[in-house]
Amino acid sequence: MTLTIIPVEELPEVKPGDRVAELLLERVELRAGDVVVVTQKIVSKAENRLEPVDADDPLAHKAIVERESVRVLRRRGDLIVSETAQGFVCANAGVDLSNVERGWVALLPVDADRSARRIRDAIRARTGLDVGVIVSDTFGRPWRRGLTDVAIGCAGVAAVVDLRGGVDTYGRELLVTEVAVADEIAAAAELVMGKARGIPAAVVRGIDPAWLREGSVRAEIVRPHGEDLFR
Amino acid sequence: MTLTIIPVEELPEVKPGDRVAELLLERVELRAGDVVVVTQKIVSKAENRLEPVDADDPLAHKAIVERESVRVLRRRGDLIVSETAQGFVCANAGVDLSNVERGWVALLPVDADRSARRIRDAIRARTGLDVGVIVSDTFGRPWRRGLTDVAIGCAGVAAVVDLRGGVDTYGRELLVTEVAVADEIAAAAELVMGKARGIPAAVVRGIDPAWLREGSVRAEIVRPHGEDLFR
Repeated sequence: MTLTIIPVEELPEVKPGDRVAELLLERVELRAGDVVVVTQKIVSKAENRLEPVDADDPLAHKAIVERESVRVLRRRGDLIVSETAQGFVCANAGVDLSNVERGWVALLPVDADRSARRIRDAIRARTGLDVGVIVSDTFGRPWRRGLTDVAIGCAGVAAVVDLRGGVDTYGRELLVTEVAVADEIAAAAELVMGKARGIPAAVVRGIDPAWLREGSVRAEIVRPHGEDLFR
Repeated sequence: MTLTIIPVEELPEVKPGDRVAELLLERVELRAGDVVVVTQKIVSKAENRLEPVDADDPLAHKAIVERESVRVLRRRGDLIVSETAQGFVCANAGVDLSNVERGWVALLPVDADRSARRIRDAIRARTGLDVGVIVSDTFGRPWRRGLTDVAIGCAGVAAVVDLRGGVDTYGRELLVTEVAVADEIAAAAELVMGKARGIPAAVVRGIDPAWLREGSVRAEIVRPHGEDLFR
């Protein structure tokens, strides 16, 4: 089954109070089973998760990062790697200066799964279509250079697909088979977005229909402290 | 620009000495600029990176994992998270029992960038086409549940794209903009593979032509110890 990833072009600058679902539906013809990936940045703007910051004072940004962190894992120079209230471990608690007007920062959505559900529900209400929605953000990782997009919230699509109990091509039980499909879909969508091209949404068409169930990044992907070897 | 991800179906079971490029070309019509993603498993089989193991002795597998590790980061139960000679940090040093005949394990390729170059060169020699090749494997990550596919080797396609010096949609210089596109392409390809479906290769069509330069996962993605906050 072939997968298609379609950038949503020419979205306008999103402002507080804008309805992301409506902006998307004006620009793309969705089909049942599509997964719409929207970046955290436009979701945060629509939800007015913007906060003024003194752009000439580097400590002002840092103070917001500290406040948004429930625990700091590492510091080096200007970089803080910390855990957010939602359990994400990322740089600067997700508090972001890029693609935001000077003098403002964008905070992560309070509950990105809920943000995804709202967009999904609005799409269903307007079109009758069942689609998946993923809110993505750009995170670094230990051990590997370069950033990749991951899911911070989802609705109508699984975050993790558990293939345990399946068999490999030798008929032997698969051992390690929990795949974070929401993260892979977010990464795939980033390939058509591009930070500098300003495309903040994409449609992924053709994913396995079995993955189109109610999902939650927080419940399925955020690793509880007790089972985490690196926290 | 729309991206298409095409599974390469009905590849035969790969055996030591098989030519991966030829097997692929018999089953898929490539175009210039395509990126072919092949899983580590078939590359390791073709390169005869297989080793017999006593399937009834759990310590036998573990001994190979220890030997393939240059440094162990964490142990819990049967799980070892360690660093390989190539600098990858992953579970069990990449030594894998699944999708291999009982009584054997598959080791990682010695140099997966070189594996990718060989396949790329063979495709070019037979077709005259310039394509990218990525060798992928399935890794866990700290802090997030679920596995995702990442690149362990590449040729003819960038591992990391550096957008530094670019500007965001507000015309401000982008700060954090090194994107691990090879990892995102590997993740995208996994969406059409599926561990249990036994599809070990996919073609990603439509990526940004600017990314089609000579790349190296080892040089661009493996993070040197000195700059790694988590090793």
